[in-house]
Amino acid sequence: MRDRKEQVSKASVWGCLAVLLLTTACKQPPPADTPAADEQTIRDLDAKWEKTAGARDLDGTLSFYSRNAVVLPGNAPIVIGKDAIRALWVSLLSPDISLSWQANKVDVSRSGDLAYVIGTYTLSAKDAQGKPATDRGKFLEVYKKQGDGSWKIAVDMYNSDLAVPPV
Amino acid sequence: MRDRKEQVSKASVWGCLAVLLLTTACKQPPPADTPAADEQTIRDLDAKWEKTAGARDLDGTLSFYSRNAVVLPGNAPIVIGKDAIRALWVSLLSPDISLSWQANKVDVSRSGDLAYVIGTYTLSAKDAQGKPATDRGKFLEVYKKQGDGSWKIAVDMYNSDLAVPPV
Repeated sequence: MRDRKEQVSKASVWGCLAVLLLTTACKQPPPADTPAADEQTIRDLDAKWEKTAGARDLDGTLSFYSRNAVVLPGNAPIVIGKDAIRALWVSLLSPDISLSWQANKVDVSRSGDLAYVIGTYTLSAKDAQGKPATDRGKFLEVYKKQGDGSWKIAVDMYNSDLAVPPV
Repeated sequence: MRDRKEQVSKASVWGCLAVLLLTTACKQPPPADTPAADEQTIRDLDAKWEKTAGARDLDGTLSFYSRNAVVLPGNAPIVIGKDAIRALWVSLLSPDISLSWQANKVDVSRSGDLAYVIGTYTLSAKDAQGKPATDRGKFLEVYKKQGDGSWKIAVDMYNSDLAVPPV
């Protein structure tokens, strides 16, 4: 009888330990190099990018792009090359403009080398007459994992939700 | 001496065979389930999609989207859900509109489950006054491999190269 009790007691201890281990495991961040870990990395990176742009840090903002990145802005031609992307961001980070964005969906390939982010932006500026104007829109970014393991933006596309005013 | 000759001759035969095999291998399409094969599959699929839309085949055009696809059009809000995407294409395939596009860059993840396509489009239509007007722009599509091995469009974004006319 005592043996039986001891067995039950031991079983309970092991059971509790197992539950504890599982609970602890569930609280851990996802293991590195999994799509879930990559997803979190990209969410954090995108939030950091938004903060860097918010601080009007031009070089910092540009550092999130890969070497061969392209930008596909709404109502403007494709922007190719470091210098052209810099010129675009010089205008986006001007003191008259206030830009913020928020990632919504992040999806990562099984191999953890390609991912995309869908989100929304708000851009407040002054229109041609100097009146305050707000543009709202959406973006689609393609992130690629680089040789050194870091994620960089390969394609950055955005467009406005607002209809083109009639001519 | 005869042995030497025979050896040289055999070596030449094997050498020629090896060259022949390599040449043949180079002429073969890339093996299935590699990023190169997937890239070609997606290029072919995108060209077929363009042809299907060109033929104003609404159901055919819609069949290229995944079940949970979203469209991010320029100067209009995000389009979510089968019915909303159908309504968008009903207007894009109207007899007054002529739409064509061309994929340029195709990039596939190592795992062959995620890819993106960058390209350009031309849309000819009549403006509010009934005058012919042409819009030129670019697109970024995200393709995802489905459970049955087929590739479907998960995200379809496009925007105009033309500046918004001043109000």
